[in-house]
This record gives sequence, C-alpha cells and structure tokens, in this order.
Amino acid sequence: MTSTAQQEISVSSSSGTRPVSKDAIINLDHGDPTMFESFWMGVGEAADITIPSWRTLSYFSDVTNFCWFLQPEFAHEARRLHSLVGNAVADDRFLVIGTGSTQLFQAALFALSPSDAPEPMSVVSAVPYYSSFPRITDYLRSGLYRWRGDASKFEGDAYIEVVCSPNNPDGSIREAVLKSGNGKTIHDLAYYWPQYIPITGAANHDIMLFTVSKLSGHAGTRLGWALVKDVEVAKKMVKFIELNTIGVSKDSQLRAAIILKAISDGYERPDLQTKPDLKMFEFGRRLLSMRWQKLREAVKASGIFTLPHFESVHCKFTGETTEACPAFAWLKCEREGTQDCADLLKKHKILVRSGGHFGVESNYARVSMVDRDETFDLFIERLMSLR
Amino acid sequence: MTSTAQQEISVSSSSGTRPVSKDAIINLDHGDPTMFESFWMGVGEAADITIPSWRTLSYFSDVTNFCWFLQPEFAHEARRLHSLVGNAVADDRFLVIGTGSTQLFQAALFALSPSDAPEPMSVVSAVPYYSSFPRITDYLRSGLYRWRGDASKFEGDAYIEVVCSPNNPDGSIREAVLKSGNGKTIHDLAYYWPQYIPITGAANHDIMLFTVSKLSGHAGTRLGWALVKDVEVAKKMVKFIELNTIGVSKDSQLRAAIILKAISDGYERPDLQTKPDLKMFEFGRRLLSMRWQKLREAVKASGIFTLPHFESVHCKFTGETTEACPAFAWLKCEREGTQDCADLLKKHKILVRSGGHFGVESNYARVSMVDRDETFDLFIERLMSLR
Repeated sequence: MTSTAQQEISVSSSSGTRPVSKDAIINLDHGDPTMFESFWMGVGEAADITIPSWRTLSYFSDVTNFCWFLQPEFAHEARRLHSLVGNAVADDRFLVIGTGSTQLFQAALFALSPSDAPEPMSVVSAVPYYSSFPRITDYLRSGLYRWRGDASKFEGDAYIEVVCSPNNPDGSIREAVLKSGNGKTIHDLAYYWPQYIPITGAANHDIMLFTVSKLSGHAGTRLGWALVKDVEVAKKMVKFIELNTIGVSKDSQLRAAIILKAISDGYERPDLQTKPDLKMFEFGRRLLSMRWQKLREAVKASGIFTLPHFESVHCKFTGETTEACPAFAWLKCEREGTQDCADLLKKHKILVRSGGHFGVESNYARVSMVDRDETFDLFIERLMSLR
Repeated sequence: MTSTAQQEISVSSSSGTRPVSKDAIINLDHGDPTMFESFWMGVGEAADITIPSWRTLSYFSDVTNFCWFLQPEFAHEARRLHSLVGNAVADDRFLVIGTGSTQLFQAALFALSPSDAPEPMSVVSAVPYYSSFPRITDYLRSGLYRWRGDASKFEGDAYIEVVCSPNNPDGSIREAVLKSGNGKTIHDLAYYWPQYIPITGAANHDIMLFTVSKLSGHAGTRLGWALVKDVEVAKKMVKFIELNTIGVSKDSQLRAAIILKAISDGYERPDLQTKPDLKMFEFGRRLLSMRWQKLREAVKASGIFTLPHFESVHCKFTGETTEACPAFAWLKCEREGTQDCADLLKKHKILVRSGGHFGVESNYARVSMVDRDETFDLFIERLMSLR
C-alpha cells in the first residue's frame, strides 16, 4: 500500500472561517496563516498594491533571464530578504518562481527524474513527513517518479529525498537521512524564518523551496520560489512550470514583491515608517511564543497530551537565545485506551490532522498554530475543559 | 513516434519585446496578446486594482462553494459576461477557476480519466491541433492519459477528444469528429469571443474552457475558467488544482474580476464612462479586421502564401454580418521548392511557429495577429518586401 490510499484531506465548511460561537467547530486542520492579518493591518498603505489595467499583459516578464516569467522586482526583494535574515545562500543561485512551493516541489521532481528511465524515480521522506508529499507525488501516476514512503526504511541507491526543515508537522530540524552519491535532495525550507525557529546559519543546499504563505501569511497569493545551484536543474524546473501553467501570475509576483519589500524596509529603512513597530519577524515570534506558552500550559493541565521539546538556540538574526515556535503543534495523545488523537479532539469539535497522514500512528495529530487569535484562544479554552 | 518527440517551443530574447529597428527580429511565434494594451490604457482608473496588504491571506475563498478557492466576485463577473455576450451557457453550470486554461486542460484530463484503468486514456484532437496539447498531455508520462494524435485517425471507443473552436492555429469552427458514446470531449473556447469570430449561439458542451489571456489580453494574470455540466467532473477538476497548486492566485482573480466588470460595464453601464469608446469587443474587432485586411493584401501581393477563407456570418452579439478575424493567421507557403514556411520567414527574421508543431506539414505556419501595432506593422512591411 502506498500512502495515496490514505483518506483524503478535505476542505469543510469551517475551513478558513472564524468560530461564530463558544461551541463552534474550531478548524485547525490546515495551516491557514491568518494570524498575520493583524500585522498587515498595522502596516497600512505602504504594503498595498495598485496595478493599472494595462500592465503586465504579456506572458513574458524578463526574456533575458532563463526564468522568463520571473518579475525582476520579486527576485530582487527575495534576494534582499535572504541577505537580511541570513537564512539561505541566495547569491549566485538560480531563482525559480512558482505557483506556491507545491508547484515548485513538482517542478523539482520533474527536474531530478531522468525522462527516459525504465522505472520511476523513488521519492522518499523521513517520518513524520508533510502529509501532501505522497499524494502530490502520485496523483498523476507519473512514469517519472513514485512515492516510496519513509526515507529511513528505503533501500536503494537512486532516489529523491525530501527534507523539510523545520519539519512539518513536528517542528524538528532535519538533515537528509540517506547519503548515496546517486541520491538527490529537495529541501523544503518554508518554515526556516525567524518567527518560527532560531536562524543558525545560511542554508546551502542544491534545491531550497520557500513560500510567501508561511513567510508573511499571504497563502492566497499562491507564490513560492526555489533557490537552485545547478543551472540545468533550474532550467528543467522552468520547463515544468511552462508546461504546467505557462508561468506564474504576475499580479501575485508584483504584490509579493511589495510585501517582501515592506518586511525588509521594516528593518533597513526605519525612516520610511509611520508606525513604530513594523518588524514582522518580531511580531510573529512574540505572538507564536505567547501561543506556545499557553498551549504548553493547557497541554500540561490536560494530562492527556504531550508536545515535542525544543532546545534553546542562539538566533543569528535576532541575537537572542530562544526556543523554536513552530507553525504546527505535534500533539501526542498519552491517554491509555485512546488511540486516535484527531478523533478525540473531533469529539470536542476541534478539527486537526491525524498522524496517519504523516506516515505515523494516529495517537499523533497536527494542530495549526498560525490561525487568527479568536480561533486559537477558543482552542486553548476548549483544551482546558478537556481534562 | 508521439508528437512529444518534436522540437521544443522556445522562448527567445525577442519574445514579448518590441522590435527596436527596421531590421530587428519580429517575433510572432507566441500568441502574446499585447494588442489590448492600448485599449486598457484608454480605459483609465476604472479597471485598475488596489489590494490592501492584509487582504486574502487565507487559502480559502468561499468554503460554501465546491470550488473553495474561487473568489465569488470573479465567478459573478464571468457569468455576467457570458450572459452579455451570449457565447456560452453559464447558468446552472459549475465554474472551476484555474491558473490559465492550460491548468484547466490538465484538470479536465485528470477528471475524465479513470484512476484505476490498466491502460492510459487516449487523448486526441483533429489536425491541425494546438501545438501544446501533445506536450502538456505527455510531459509527466502519466499512467492516466496519453496523447494519441489526430482524432480523425483514431480507432477506438474510449478517448478524450479536445475540440478547440475557433481552432488554434487555423481559426476554423470545429465540432467533435469522434462520436462514440464512451468518448469524452473537452471544448477549448478560448477564442470564442466577438473580436475574433461572429457569435452564432451559446455553446453548451460538457466542459468548456476560457481564459482571460485571449479575452482581454491579460496573459500575465494566468487565469482561466471552466464551465462544467457534471458536478462529479467539476469536483475532480477542483481536486486536481488543489493537488497541483493548492488553488489559484486570489490576486489574479480579484484583478480579473475588475477587468471583466469593466468590459461588461462598457456595454451595460454607459453612465459610468468618462470616455466615449470603451467597448472592448469593438476595439478588438476593428483592430483585427484592419490587420487581416492588411495581411490579405500583403499575402496576395507576395504571390508566395495563401490564407484560409472565412465565410461572412451573422453575429448575434454585434448584429452585424462579418468574417472571422482569428488571433492567428495560418499561412501556407505555395512557392514550389519551398517546403518550410517558418524557415523561409526566419531567413527574413520573422519568427513564427511551424506546421509540424500542429501535427501537419511544415509548408504551414502559424503567425500571431495579436501583438502590438509596431510589431504587426513591421511584419506587414517585411512581408511586402518578400515578393
């Protein structure tokens, strides 16, 4: 059985909405990053965008670039932000834009799999792995690549290992577990930003994926980018995106460029600021840190669950020594006789994603930490009543 | 040999750019719809969009809709425009949004192919067919579907026939050529708008694809939509887009909603207009009609080429009886000894797409008619010098 046989992840009527009453369904299944709304409301007009109707009609953004559908202003702001934060080596790397990092993940699979191999390339990731990897790999039954599950159980020489770090769902720092010279890696660094984790150095891998969804909360903009070392790999990724969607929304790119600019300006251009506190990473860390504290208290009080422990580490960006505050809580149900954590919470109208989706037992479940305040606060309140 | 073995369509340094001198390369290979820029410049602020930084962060647009990533304002304006133009039955149809109609084409292949069949579903289209169909169908070597070429040569009972009408590349009105009860169809109606062709009635097929690229020229916005009769097919298309890109850029949807609104307002709300001539379809038809006249004169004078003939037909939208003015000219080289039309034009620094890409002989070539004035005028000038 491959993991595609698992139950589907489903969108329900409570997805993305605010709970309307004390006993409403609380949906923390998806990682919908709406907690950032209040930050952007505070920023004001500086990060708004106006696009004239006659602009960016053409398919082409920059035909002098190998990634011809990449808006130069976005590339500039992405490199600038990496330089500011120090989380990834971006200079001398090829930047490929994508319709979210989901599309870039598929572009990377396409680029790393030989087009003429008799057998599909094996795609693996260590458990617990991001719940979408199996299904995204297998939904088209591609002859190029196939999901093979847990990387640590894989035996073979040729493979693509997906390394998500910090890891979705459990927040752990990850390195590749396989070490074959024929193996390839894709590093999903969506959460390697200072609001979630101390920045310990500039990541420098062959293919690194990022997304504005988890950086700034703009999930609806559907924009991601890849930093790629090898030009031939980068070119094949561009070819995938050309065939898949003939490029990437320019409106999203223009908007994201302004969002990223506002984030960097918050640190580098205090002269532009009309309001005192426009440092996004500090906003995010402060909020997540408070939430994690509340969650740990509630979990402790419950006596039912446990959470992963994170060591305090020096963050080169903030200069502080702090714990990780992941975008997801990886909850383990310790109550005897209760085998399904998500099921237990569902009985209390709390929707979370069961461990089975991540390749592990269902006594684990993933809970989003990045929703709106009112949703999170109601979650804590209900958790407290569970004991 | 499947058509994927054909040479790649390539983006070059002249793609999307203006010719800089009288003897510059003229690139009419792609159908880059930049001729609409001058219309939108005339419209002014009414069709501009401003998006506040805190808006549309969530993945979700409307969880009450089966297509949970569809912005209601776009759906409203798309249905309104179909009702105004009368080109397609949109009421009581399921509307699926996509990252261009290219993504929707793949979503439709995914939806119409059984997930558990031992052999891939055959995908066919009558020659000359849109050059991207073969490659988009086969690039992932999917086990679900496979390109089988010319529909009129296909023998079998189960298939997906793609019907592009008016047809890219030759502008002809098309109907399905296969009639099996087990067969499925996808109708690509990207060009079924009054600037290109007289509207003879509301199309009413199982799956109909549209795109803003060819409607209003906003190719960079990467937005298409499908009108779908069967809810199960529509749901599977939504599932594809969920797995492929987790929805569709909201920025693009919001912008396209305003663009479509401006088009409809140009006809239905003259009270809103600050300028006299804001009827987009008339702008497009007038410009294309002039261009076709110039092209026919140049082609006739050349003595080398011929063009398809189009009958005059009554257009229910404009009330006039007119010829088609397709977005592409399908040029046939009639000179003895010259077998490659694109090659002949390339010697004169005119880049067009060779017939081979469309499943026919290379004495045919496709020429974009929707580029900017200066590019088109230089093309005509150079064509005149060819005789």
